[in-house]
Amino acid sequence: MIQINSHLAGLQNNYLFSEIAARVARYKKEYQQKPINLGIGDTVLPLPASAVRALHQAAEEIAHRHSFRGYGPEQGYSFLRALIAEHDYQQRDIAIHEDEIFISDGAKSDAANIQELFSSHSSVAIPNPVYPVYQDTNIIAGRGSTLHYLAGTADNDFIPRPPSEQYNLIYLCYPNNPTGVMCNRGMLAQWVEYALENNAIIVYDAAYESFICDPELPHSIYEIPNADQVAIEIRSFSKNASFTGTRCAFTVVPKKCHGYNAQQQPVALHPLWLRRCATKFNGLSYPVQRAAAALYSPEGKQEIQERVSYYMQNAAIIRQALRNRSIRHWGGIDAPYIWLEAGGDSWKLFDRLLQHAAVVTTPGAGFGSCGEGYLRISAFNLRENVERATERLLQIW
Amino acid sequence: MIQINSHLAGLQNNYLFSEIAARVARYKKEYQQKPINLGIGDTVLPLPASAVRALHQAAEEIAHRHSFRGYGPEQGYSFLRALIAEHDYQQRDIAIHEDEIFISDGAKSDAANIQELFSSHSSVAIPNPVYPVYQDTNIIAGRGSTLHYLAGTADNDFIPRPPSEQYNLIYLCYPNNPTGVMCNRGMLAQWVEYALENNAIIVYDAAYESFICDPELPHSIYEIPNADQVAIEIRSFSKNASFTGTRCAFTVVPKKCHGYNAQQQPVALHPLWLRRCATKFNGLSYPVQRAAAALYSPEGKQEIQERVSYYMQNAAIIRQALRNRSIRHWGGIDAPYIWLEAGGDSWKLFDRLLQHAAVVTTPGAGFGSCGEGYLRISAFNLRENVERATERLLQIW
Repeated sequence: MIQINSHLAGLQNNYLFSEIAARVARYKKEYQQKPINLGIGDTVLPLPASAVRALHQAAEEIAHRHSFRGYGPEQGYSFLRALIAEHDYQQRDIAIHEDEIFISDGAKSDAANIQELFSSHSSVAIPNPVYPVYQDTNIIAGRGSTLHYLAGTADNDFIPRPPSEQYNLIYLCYPNNPTGVMCNRGMLAQWVEYALENNAIIVYDAAYESFICDPELPHSIYEIPNADQVAIEIRSFSKNASFTGTRCAFTVVPKKCHGYNAQQQPVALHPLWLRRCATKFNGLSYPVQRAAAALYSPEGKQEIQERVSYYMQNAAIIRQALRNRSIRHWGGIDAPYIWLEAGGDSWKLFDRLLQHAAVVTTPGAGFGSCGEGYLRISAFNLRENVERATERLLQIW
Repeated sequence: MIQINSHLAGLQNNYLFSEIAARVARYKKEYQQKPINLGIGDTVLPLPASAVRALHQAAEEIAHRHSFRGYGPEQGYSFLRALIAEHDYQQRDIAIHEDEIFISDGAKSDAANIQELFSSHSSVAIPNPVYPVYQDTNIIAGRGSTLHYLAGTADNDFIPRPPSEQYNLIYLCYPNNPTGVMCNRGMLAQWVEYALENNAIIVYDAAYESFICDPELPHSIYEIPNADQVAIEIRSFSKNASFTGTRCAFTVVPKKCHGYNAQQQPVALHPLWLRRCATKFNGLSYPVQRAAAALYSPEGKQEIQERVSYYMQNAAIIRQALRNRSIRHWGGIDAPYIWLEAGGDSWKLFDRLLQHAAVVTTPGAGFGSCGEGYLRISAFNLRENVERATERLLQIW
C-alpha cells in the first residue's frame, strides 16, 4: 500500500491568496465593479523591446535546420552566465564566475529546490513575516519540526538580527517581500559572521535587487567578505524585466561554499547542486535564455531602469499618501512593496479598503503571525491605477 | 554545522555520458575527425513552423502593454491543457479532462519530481536497463535502500512482467528508453492489475508515445480500464516536435488516482500534486505554451507526423543493416531507439565502433547492469548521417 508524503498532505492550504480571491469575487458580484489590484506583485509593463527582439531572433534560429538547437546545458548557456558574472558581479568587484551561476525558470523554483542540498534533519530559520515558499518547501521535505522563525517586528524595523541559537540553514530576503525593507551592509555582515561561526548556510533571496535605490546598500551578499563560503544567492528577471510570465532566474553557488558530511568534513556544494540540476532539470528554454541575455545590452539595461523607476515612482506616490495621513509604514524606498500598520486586524482593514475604496491589498497575517496588524501594498500596477487607488484610499482614511 | 544531503552526495557520478564525452574527445584529438553521433537522443530537425509562428505571435503579444501576460497558472494555461485533453485523450475515448493535466518544462522534471508525492519509505521498482532519472531521484530522496530492479533481458524481450513482491511505486517507460521496445495492451493490463491489487502507483513515462506505429499498441496507460485509479502518465513534446531546447511536457494526475495515509485511508493525489506545483513552480513560459498549443493545429499535427516518420525511417535503415549482418536487435519499430546484442563487453563494442567506423553509440552498461552486453543506437540524426554511419558500420562488421 503506497503511503503519501504526509508532510505534503499536512501542509496548510494557502489560505491567503485563495481567501483574497474569494473576497474579491464576492465584491465584484455585489458591486458589479472591478477593484484596483495592489495586492499581487505581478508586472504590468510589457517585455522590454530588447528581449522581444531576442525572442524573435531565437525563434528564427531554431526554425532552421542549420541553426537549430536541441538540449542545452542543464546549468544554462554560457552566453547568459558570462553576462551575469560580468555585469552583476565582476563590474561590482565581486569575484563570482560564470561557472558558479545556474540559470533556472524562476526564483521560486530555486528557493524551493535549494533545500535538497541539505540533510532532512537540518534546523532551518526563516523570517516572519515572509514569502511562504521557504517555509512550505521545508515542511514538504520533512523539516516542519526543525523550523524556527525569526521575528520581524516594528521594534527591529522588520529586520531580524542573528539569534543566539545555532541554526543550520537561514533564509534571508532583501529587499524584502512582503515588508519592502532593506538591510544595510552592517546587518548583512552580522549574518555572514553568524553563518561562518556556526558553519551554517544562508540562502539569500535577492529577487528584488534591481529596486535598491540607495547607493550605500549592498546589491549582493557577496559584497560581504567571505560570504562566498556560506551563502547561496538567488536573483530573478521577473520583476525588473517583466519576465513573470516568460520565466528566467539564476542562482549563485560559489565554489568555495560548503556544507559538512557526517564526519564533519567540508563538502563543496557546487558539484552537488550541479548534480542535482543535471538529474532533475534539462535546462531553461533556449529562446528565453536569449531574451534574458539581451537585457544586458545598453538598451536592455535602460529598459530595466525605466521599469524599476516606474514602479518606484508608484511606490513614492503610495508612500506620500500614507505620510499625508500619518500612517506608519515601512519599505517602498528600495523595494516595490509598502508595509503599513493596519491599526488592528489586517483582514478587517483589507475588507474596509476593498469595500469602501475598491482597492485590493494583502493582509499581513498571510505572511506569518508577525504580519498580523499590517498590510502589504504592491507598487506593481499602472500609474493611473495607483493614482486612482491612492485617491480613493485618502478619501476613506 | 550544516549537514549535506548524504543521499545526493553518495549518488554515483553519471559515469556514462561523461565517459562517452571523454572517449569522443580523445578520438577527435587523435584522428582529427568528428564522429557521427548516434548516441544521444536529441532532435536535429527544426522546430515546426506552426510552433515558430506561435512563438513570434506570443512574443508580440507580451511586447505590448494591452496584451502583456504576467504570472500564468502554475498548472499551465487552460488553452493548452484543453487541447491535450481533447486530442491526446478524449479523441481516443479516454476520459481525461483538462484539469487533470499539468504543463511543465520537461518530462525529466516531472519524472524527477513526482516521487515527492510519496512517503520516503515507499518501496520502488524500476526496470533495468532504464533511463537513469527514476533511480537517481529516488536515491536523492533517501529511497536507495528500498529500490528494487525489474530485470529486462533477452528472455523477456526487455519487458519485465509484474513481480511476486509487493512494491509501492513502479516506474514504466513505453516506448522504452533505452531498448526501444513497446509493451502490448495485455502486458500493460497486467501491470494495472498488479497496481490495483497491491494498492501501488505506476508512473508511466510515455515520452516517446508519438513514435508508436503499430495501431494495436496502447498510446496511453489510461486505455486500460481503471488505470486512472493507479497511474500517473508523463508525456513530452521534446522528441516528436523538436522541443528538446524549447522545453514543454505534461503530466496527467487523474482525479481518481490515490495513495494512502498512515491510517490506510485513500488520499487523492491530484490536490497534492497541485499543491506541490503551486509551491515550487510558477508555470511554464507563456510563449512556449503557445508554441506547444500550435502543435495541435492540422499543420502542427502534420509537422509532428513528418518528424516522427523521418526518425522512424532512420530507424528502419539501421534495423535493415543489422538484419543484413544477422545482428540480434530489439526496438526501432515503435520507438526511435535500437538495442542490439554487443556480443560481449558493451564498452569494447562502443570503442570499436568509434575507432573503426567513427560512429558514437551508447553502451548498454550505462543504463544498468542488465544493459551490459548491449548497445543503444539512436535514430535521432539527419538522414545522410544515418546512412553514412550505417555504411561504415557494415564495413567493419
